[in-house]
Amino acid sequence: MLATEKTMEKIVALCKSRGFVYPGSEIYGGLSNSWDYGPLGVEFKNNVKRAWWKKFVQESPTNVGLDAAILMNPEVWVASGHVGGFSDPLMDCRDCKTRHRADKLIEDFTGEPADGWSNQQMMDFIKEHDIKCPNCGSSNFTDIRQFNLMFKTFQGVTEDAKNELYLRPETAQGIFVNFNNIQRTTRKKVPFGVCQVGKSFRNEITPGNFIFRIREFEQMECEFFCKPGTDLEWFEYWRGFCRDWLLSLGMTEENMRLRDHAKEELSFYSKATTDIEYLFPFGWGELWGIADRTDYDLKQHQEHSGKSLEYFDQEANERYIPYVVEPSLGADRVTLAFLCDAYDEEVVDAEKKDTRVVMHLHPALAPFKAAVLPLSKKLNDKAQEVYNRLTKHFMVDYDDAGSIGKRYRRQDEIGTPYCITYDFDSETDGCVTVRDRDSMEQERVKIDDLVHYILKKIQF
Amino acid sequence: MLATEKTMEKIVALCKSRGFVYPGSEIYGGLSNSWDYGPLGVEFKNNVKRAWWKKFVQESPTNVGLDAAILMNPEVWVASGHVGGFSDPLMDCRDCKTRHRADKLIEDFTGEPADGWSNQQMMDFIKEHDIKCPNCGSSNFTDIRQFNLMFKTFQGVTEDAKNELYLRPETAQGIFVNFNNIQRTTRKKVPFGVCQVGKSFRNEITPGNFIFRIREFEQMECEFFCKPGTDLEWFEYWRGFCRDWLLSLGMTEENMRLRDHAKEELSFYSKATTDIEYLFPFGWGELWGIADRTDYDLKQHQEHSGKSLEYFDQEANERYIPYVVEPSLGADRVTLAFLCDAYDEEVVDAEKKDTRVVMHLHPALAPFKAAVLPLSKKLNDKAQEVYNRLTKHFMVDYDDAGSIGKRYRRQDEIGTPYCITYDFDSETDGCVTVRDRDSMEQERVKIDDLVHYILKKIQF
Repeated sequence: MLATEKTMEKIVALCKSRGFVYPGSEIYGGLSNSWDYGPLGVEFKNNVKRAWWKKFVQESPTNVGLDAAILMNPEVWVASGHVGGFSDPLMDCRDCKTRHRADKLIEDFTGEPADGWSNQQMMDFIKEHDIKCPNCGSSNFTDIRQFNLMFKTFQGVTEDAKNELYLRPETAQGIFVNFNNIQRTTRKKVPFGVCQVGKSFRNEITPGNFIFRIREFEQMECEFFCKPGTDLEWFEYWRGFCRDWLLSLGMTEENMRLRDHAKEELSFYSKATTDIEYLFPFGWGELWGIADRTDYDLKQHQEHSGKSLEYFDQEANERYIPYVVEPSLGADRVTLAFLCDAYDEEVVDAEKKDTRVVMHLHPALAPFKAAVLPLSKKLNDKAQEVYNRLTKHFMVDYDDAGSIGKRYRRQDEIGTPYCITYDFDSETDGCVTVRDRDSMEQERVKIDDLVHYILKKIQF
Repeated sequence: MLATEKTMEKIVALCKSRGFVYPGSEIYGGLSNSWDYGPLGVEFKNNVKRAWWKKFVQESPTNVGLDAAILMNPEVWVASGHVGGFSDPLMDCRDCKTRHRADKLIEDFTGEPADGWSNQQMMDFIKEHDIKCPNCGSSNFTDIRQFNLMFKTFQGVTEDAKNELYLRPETAQGIFVNFNNIQRTTRKKVPFGVCQVGKSFRNEITPGNFIFRIREFEQMECEFFCKPGTDLEWFEYWRGFCRDWLLSLGMTEENMRLRDHAKEELSFYSKATTDIEYLFPFGWGELWGIADRTDYDLKQHQEHSGKSLEYFDQEANERYIPYVVEPSLGADRVTLAFLCDAYDEEVVDAEKKDTRVVMHLHPALAPFKAAVLPLSKKLNDKAQEVYNRLTKHFMVDYDDAGSIGKRYRRQDEIGTPYCITYDFDSETDGCVTVRDRDSMEQERVKIDDLVHYILKKIQF
């Protein structure tokens, strides 16, 4: 059993060696916790984003998309509370000069999140329980200081406060400030949702666990606007919808849990919040936060901008600020979760001690939908014709190096669901052998039917 | 004729009113030259990016994709020359205190680009020809100072030089620094290309012309690595490939020109450069730069990082630094070009003075591939079933408000190629009427054939 244990080490090694994820700026010694998606990673992550867009926008009768800029008017972040309150409580160890998040020290000590504690509460707890510096073991900490997590930059020729901008720490505010524009131009009636995929930036002090917590990350957020009073119903709806999305893409149910926030844990404006967590090799980690945010965000922006963000409900003949249910998903995190979930080491032949590494990725997520493998290099021309026909419709790999067995294993390792072998019979019978990644069973399929055969299998 | 003149004003107005593009952070008075893509804009731009990826990656036997981080080790920008040389020559008008780009003042005066001029040359020219401040008419300018165009930020808890980072001003360097990783993990042989779509940031002093020149913009870049000596051949290949891509998506040939750089205009490391320009309502503007960059970039990084970026060519049994051909396309610019190109005002009935605004977008680029229009609200349930079947495959609009004629016009204006009317016969004959946006001709199509009928028409 130990041999087939799933570890982050193995998954990171596979990602680097096969081109899913590389350390960022590696030839310059990297940049702490930055990662680049390689040729397989970009396809895989794009497929995750597309699968989200398909269910949240394309097939949704209520939702529309948006792509707002990363750089926004800084007043947005004053209104949203990020300038005032989006900070980490930091303390330095006076002995070894390392810096730590006070809430993390407590969390590591108790095993419970310390959300919503005041600086004083945290200081008291750390002293009372004599929590030590994880680096040197001393308890000689400074006081807690708040450190804002937004990346700052300057637009224009002078670096003064007037020109100060922030890199957005979340995509959600781009949706809220566009509420009027979107409602007016789409003529959507409440309830409706607005969905966005895009980069956000947080100057985390302790990023880590590969692409789980990174400073530059991607979010997939939906803000669903509904009539006050119907919000808890919609909260339940989206909570289930999100869980079902993960399950429908093959995520193992036992590796998922829905953690409902207790009353004390809720933000003061939230009526209900659920985190969907995944059991990574390093422990449970949050993928998706689904929150009933009431009218907090729109109200803040209405007050701060002086522009009405009320909606006129024709049916009820009344004006109100809609309530918001927000399912907010980390694109890099869920990509990592799908990778971890799909990773497997299988015994193919116990006697021969033959094992294979295989990624049981949902075909809709797999970087390549198929690989074309000519049995001999003599068949390259004809096999390439098959490849060219298929690439009109989806991503396909082509591999003519090494034995067929080796080539199968290479495709298994990157999750390609179908291997297509072009052999010497193919020229006469117009058929190829299609081998299924998971069952390893083979089937003879007409070349003319191939596109349709695979399209049907990869449907999502 | 005047009534049907294509102006930026009309196009911007349509973008704002229909939800293609909104001014960024609008409720806070905006943020100079920032724009958000609305529900139609995000679909449209995503389709442009997808069409590029399809031809440059998916269907290409030589090219692979990449998605590198925006924040990179700052040494990358020292090596690339951006820290030292990526700057604008600025001068202030002492009388009205406005700031200007010296090269732009000359360009506006001569009608020719002033690329590659030294500060002294520019100063002399401006004095000699007595070029005036465009704002107040004075010629009381300060000397020229160089202003670096990279946005600066800080990672970590202190804002000192040690923690200084830049927002990437181009996506290309993310490809160069990953050359070894990509070559090793994909086992690609030269020639091969690496393609990337992503945000870049330039602190432009004079952005403008809607989404043509913006500070936060998106690029689609390909770095094609080839054997020295074959580079000019590949340059010609990609020059033609890029032009054909635009034409195949319906761009009007007369509105395009390929401007080959003269010898004096070339960067010192480039053997050949061509700009593909489009005739916008505001004049010719560059969409695509295709450049033979020789081994300049990889050599710079090899020298600066101390890591070999040589490639071992097994066939020729030799080591060399590959040459690079770079087709670099602005995603926002080409999106705007397709919008401008597609915009039309047509006389439908001269006697009745009936005109329509119609966007003749290529179906692969249109935000919605089809719209489902029930003839009466009584038919909503059945029409929605048709809508639900289609949204499994592509983006579809649903509209039941107003007369059919009005609904057709609304779809024409946003470029929807097919309007599907569900009428009282549909329930009995299982057919719908499909109306073509461009010819306005109607055809009766079986509901069961609809998905296939449309998929065939929107193929790219």
